[in-house]
Amino acid sequence: RDAAFTAEVLRLLDNKTKPVGALGRLEALALRIAQVLGDAQPVLREPQMLVCAGDHGLAGRGVSAYPADVTWQMVHNFLSGGAAVSVLARQHALALTVVDCGVRREFEPQPGLLVRRIAPGTADALVQGAMTPEQCAQAIANGREIVRGLPGNALLLGEMGIGNSSSAALLLARLGGLDLAQCVGPGTGLDATGLRHKREVLSEVLARHEQARSPLDALAALGGFEIATLVGAVLEAASQRRVIVVDGFITGAAVLVAHALQPWVTQRCVASHESAEPGHALLLHQLGLSPLLRLDLRLGEGSGAALAWPLLVSACAILREMASFDSAGVSRQSEAGGGTA
Amino acid sequence: RDAAFTAEVLRLLDNKTKPVGALGRLEALALRIAQVLGDAQPVLREPQMLVCAGDHGLAGRGVSAYPADVTWQMVHNFLSGGAAVSVLARQHALALTVVDCGVRREFEPQPGLLVRRIAPGTADALVQGAMTPEQCAQAIANGREIVRGLPGNALLLGEMGIGNSSSAALLLARLGGLDLAQCVGPGTGLDATGLRHKREVLSEVLARHEQARSPLDALAALGGFEIATLVGAVLEAASQRRVIVVDGFITGAAVLVAHALQPWVTQRCVASHESAEPGHALLLHQLGLSPLLRLDLRLGEGSGAALAWPLLVSACAILREMASFDSAGVSRQSEAGGGTA
Repeated sequence: RDAAFTAEVLRLLDNKTKPVGALGRLEALALRIAQVLGDAQPVLREPQMLVCAGDHGLAGRGVSAYPADVTWQMVHNFLSGGAAVSVLARQHALALTVVDCGVRREFEPQPGLLVRRIAPGTADALVQGAMTPEQCAQAIANGREIVRGLPGNALLLGEMGIGNSSSAALLLARLGGLDLAQCVGPGTGLDATGLRHKREVLSEVLARHEQARSPLDALAALGGFEIATLVGAVLEAASQRRVIVVDGFITGAAVLVAHALQPWVTQRCVASHESAEPGHALLLHQLGLSPLLRLDLRLGEGSGAALAWPLLVSACAILREMASFDSAGVSRQSEAGGGTA
Repeated sequence: RDAAFTAEVLRLLDNKTKPVGALGRLEALALRIAQVLGDAQPVLREPQMLVCAGDHGLAGRGVSAYPADVTWQMVHNFLSGGAAVSVLARQHALALTVVDCGVRREFEPQPGLLVRRIAPGTADALVQGAMTPEQCAQAIANGREIVRGLPGNALLLGEMGIGNSSSAALLLARLGGLDLAQCVGPGTGLDATGLRHKREVLSEVLARHEQARSPLDALAALGGFEIATLVGAVLEAASQRRVIVVDGFITGAAVLVAHALQPWVTQRCVASHESAEPGHALLLHQLGLSPLLRLDLRLGEGSGAALAWPLLVSACAILREMASFDSAGVSRQSEAGGGTA
């Protein structure tokens, strides 16, 4: 049945008034969205940008170029409309929901903010697991519940958390079976000295949690509240057949965990971009996803997902609105006369 | 003065609430648009998609996978809203103007169509120059006049003309001083035999016009009415400081001619994408332009320019709407304390 549906969509694309395959990767994107939504005339409805925020005990170990307070400050910036993801979500009419999954400092209640705090930041993974198994399970459950409460058939993933490129690197190394040094990059902007220090710290963390090998054990030991919440969001959105737009290295790490739990979730995913963070290309390779954009972004927040969003809308519009050769009365390649064969 | 303006825009970008450079190539794009418009808070107004169409005498030599009638048919498809560029222009609210620069068969007058016909198709460049110098000058003047009549501060370039990837390849080889074989590709979809034939024909054409070496001589001998009209459009738009969004191989060839006449025009240009046509990467290199998208498109029409358009809008929005560190009360990297340095 799936093969028949795929053949139908490919036939529709091939009959559009253009040479076969001339819209390149936009055609593959159209097929992917049609498959996720089970609709050969797909319509993306009420897209939701979900930005999960949390703090990291490891941030106290000097693994980030920014102080941990920036997580809290940036959540305010998201909500007041001045951050990159706020600007881009507004441009593309993406509903923006920010979740406090466990930021160190609390927030006053405000529109657009969901409070699903597990604790004021994770524990220091150099000393103990970043989360207890119970905290991790609660964060995943929160992510599932949040998605159940959101309308629409498309979910764009975003995040904020000073120190979370460390969690992503650790999860990639552990679950992908990769050398840690390859997975660790400058994040928001460490210099060479800072990067060397980050590699040393993360190497100790990985050794400390040698036994955390299952997806959930690794997530609890090495992850973060925002990453675990995103894992739940991805699992729920995938099971509901929403189109999931993955942002950068951190949201990609959440998809990697979800994929390790349920390999088929990546069938519901679109990789928006490949970032400048060196581990991201390795992560996308692990997921078998091909990025739409390569703009050397390294911001996170969901900014890359938002930038790629209009390409998804275009892909659907091509399928729905382009004329066929027959309907438009355009000659096909095979009808070419002798002189122009 | 220009250096001071550039420094001002870079300072604005660096003070936005993100790590320096974290929006990657979007920041370079924002700077480029600000420079073209001379405005550090740039607003793109009334963007115009200009699709120039013309037929080619060389199409009778079997250099295209499609019959020449398709030019006329596709112009109808553009105007009735069923072509890729129609769908994408609608999505992004780009005003669409289609120009008959010299299609073999005439059109009834209709909304959205400008008639600036030089002749019903160019002459066969294997026998004589594709255009006379007078025809070529008239087409360039038409392009200038068309742009003077269009509102807005951004011009997106599109084209249609069965056989015009041959003209583009010939212009690239001649004006770029490149080996012709590198510049010739399958266009809309020639097979290996067709491609071999196209190379043989174009090699003869290039030898036949050995003397046509100046930009205008080469354009007249090897170009097309739609390409010459686009050259005029590019020259006029550049002199008016409009942002010019280049599409693929054919519109790129028009920019190459304009650049050979007035080297500074590329300062007003944004390259929307690098297509699957092998000569396009060489052409962009000649122009010194770096493409925003690489989606293996090979359709033309302006489809790639339309797909990249929202990235230009995003780049302006970042400059205009993102908060600064000071206005948002977010800590900078340099303020990081010892533990998080």
